Parts: sequence; C-alpha cells; structure tokens
Amino acid sequence: MKLYSYFRSSASYRVRIALNLKNLPYEYLPVHLLRDGGEQFKPEYRELNHDAIVPTLVDGDHVITQSLAIIEYLEETHPEPPLLPSKPVDRAYVRSIVQQLACEIHPLNNLRVLKYLKRTVGVNDEVKDAWYRHWISSGFAALEEYLVADGRAGKLCFGDTPTIADICLVPQVFNANRFNVDMSPYPTIRRICEHANTLDAFARAEPGVQPDAE
Amino acid sequence: MKLYSYFRSSASYRVRIALNLKNLPYEYLPVHLLRDGGEQFKPEYRELNHDAIVPTLVDGDHVITQSLAIIEYLEETHPEPPLLPSKPVDRAYVRSIVQQLACEIHPLNNLRVLKYLKRTVGVNDEVKDAWYRHWISSGFAALEEYLVADGRAGKLCFGDTPTIADICLVPQVFNANRFNVDMSPYPTIRRICEHANTLDAFARAEPGVQPDAE
Repeated sequence: MKLYSYFRSSASYRVRIALNLKNLPYEYLPVHLLRDGGEQFKPEYRELNHDAIVPTLVDGDHVITQSLAIIEYLEETHPEPPLLPSKPVDRAYVRSIVQQLACEIHPLNNLRVLKYLKRTVGVNDEVKDAWYRHWISSGFAALEEYLVADGRAGKLCFGDTPTIADICLVPQVFNANRFNVDMSPYPTIRRICEHANTLDAFARAEPGVQPDAE
Repeated sequence: MKLYSYFRSSASYRVRIALNLKNLPYEYLPVHLLRDGGEQFKPEYRELNHDAIVPTLVDGDHVITQSLAIIEYLEETHPEPPLLPSKPVDRAYVRSIVQQLACEIHPLNNLRVLKYLKRTVGVNDEVKDAWYRHWISSGFAALEEYLVADGRAGKLCFGDTPTIADICLVPQVFNANRFNVDMSPYPTIRRICEHANTLDAFARAEPGVQPDAE
C-alpha cells in the first residue's frame, strides 16, 4: 500500500496509526501542504484526490480518499486486530466519539479554513488563534463530559483496547498542545492520550518521526 | 425508537431518510434550535447529548449521538435494505463521499459556527453568507469531479440504489438551494438529488413535512 501523507496533517496521522495497529507496511509518499503553494494542488495529485487534501491510500488498483473511509476499509479488509468493538451499540459509541472529533472540531481548524479566515474574512492572527482554540476547547469539554458520563472508557476511549476513537483523539490532542490549548479541564482525554502514546503503533505515527518531518 | 430532531437540521434529515429507507417507525421529538436560546442547551437534553446538537436516537436503553454513528448503527442492527454496497472498496467509495460532505462542507456551515462568526469574529451578514456559499461551492466542485471521474454513479451516487452517500447529499443540496447557491456547475449532483427526491423515503424526510416545520 502507498499512503500520501503530510507529517503534520491530523487526518494522515489517523491513517498512519491505523496502518501501524493493523501491522500493515506501507510506502510513505510525502505531499507538502505549504511548499510551492501546496503540492496537494498539483494536477497529478488532484487526479487521485479531487478535494486536494491528504491522506490518500493506494491499495493495488484502488484509490481511497478521506481518512475515516480509509480506516473503515482497512477494518473490513484486514479485520485483525479489530479497531471497533464487536457489539453494534459499542461500535456506535466509538463512532460517535470519532464523529465528535472529525466533524465538530477538526474541520473548523483545517489549513484551508484558517487560510480563508485570514485572506478572505481578513482576521488577524489573534482572532485566528482564538478561533482555533475555541473549537478544540468547546469540543473537548463536551467529549470529556461524554467519556466520564458514559463509563465505557478505560485506559483508552473504549476499555483498554485501541479503537478508531483513540486514533482520532490522539492527533486532535497533538494539535491542541501545538496551539497551547489549556488541557487541564480535560483530565480523561489527557489520560487516554498519554496512555495511547505509550503504544508503539501510536508512537511510530507521530508527526515528528515521519520521513517528511521538519 | 425515538428521534430527537429539528426539521431544518441536515444531520437530523440524514437520519430521518435512513430510518425511512429501513422502514423503521419512530417517534419524532422536536428540539427547537432557536427558540428560548436553543432547546438543545436545556439540561435534560444535554444529559442525552453532551454536544447539545441534534439528532439523538434512543433505541430502547441505548442513546446514540452523531448522525453517521446512528446510521452505521441502523445498518448493523437492521441490515435490510442495505445502505452500503457489499464490496469493501465500494463501501469505501460511499464512505468517502459521506465524509466529503460531512467533514469538508457541513461542519463549516453549522448554526454554532455561523453564530461564532457573527458574534465573536464580528462579521456582517454579507461575509457570513459568502462563507456559507464558499464551502458548499468548493466542496461540490470537488465532489462533482469525483462522481464524474469515478464512474460508479448511476441514478444515485452508487449505481441506482440509495446509500449513505445519497442520504448525506440530499440535505446538503437542500441547504445549498436555501442559500441560493448556483447549482449549475454541478449537473451530476443536481441530477442525483432530483432522482433521490422522487423516492418516498427521501420525500417523507424533507424538512417541510416534519411535525415541527414552520
């Protein structure tokens, strides 16, 4: 398999963790999101990914875009070890956390959204950074409540075994730390993330150890 | 089953279509997102949904949040008729379209995001409406390209049978029309959506025919 990735992209980071957890080797193809106005806009890449974003997974003849579609595909084609619980109601719990992260927080802080805020809306860096932190803080506040109230969390979001929820949580916490979000109101999220990062599959996916890390 | 819904919420609209396609009857519990500062913020609702958003599905003892987690749950617990193709690679194609809509377009135009833009960033209605239309137009442009280049679309996003892709597409096109987005550059999207709306399950889920429609 080949993965088009950018070291700092959290969507790429998710797929790297999933590939590592599944013990699937892959070729790392870097796409620099800033260099030359963004390599993701080059015609040859846009043929693979019309949205001009990372990641893109190539598995033989199949080109798959969107990190969560890729991870569900890996789960279906390489079921062991599973990244979702077995009971539908528990799978729904995990997928709900995934969507809370992937729909309520992450899209608002995407590179292109920050660019639009600065260039088109015309906000300054202070307003942009406050925007960034606002969506993480409000999303994490709700997620912290959910994790505590639900009771299915253990060392990780669902018991002690890694699921797609942890795969999405860790990159989001990485971003929060990068932007100096105060994590003290979210002890459960912090604890889960610290534990996940002790696992080899998560550690090997970290932005700082990727071939294109700067 | 009980569905906490708001007639105009596109995430609720998705779940209504899915329930109709699966022929599952449900009790409709309206949550007015604007009245009294938003009924979704009331403590009794926030106990069910910590994010204070709709929809929430209650199935017996199980409370499930996030529209896509709900729909995947319905797919697993009530497999017929299926809302995903059978082959993993085709399921990935459908889920990729779903995420293109649910992550790249929809979250940017959520009520709370528009509120933050107006109240905190301080933009006027013209800038806010341009923002709204920008994310739909850029997302639809990429999706139109994807649908045409991929070749798996038929009368609907995947052949002629409704999938989660159509379930997410139709509410997004509804929003586009509501905000007068020029749909002429997206003939495939328009055609798919027009066909979907001829189907009873889609028609019965439309905002205008819900119990809380205004």
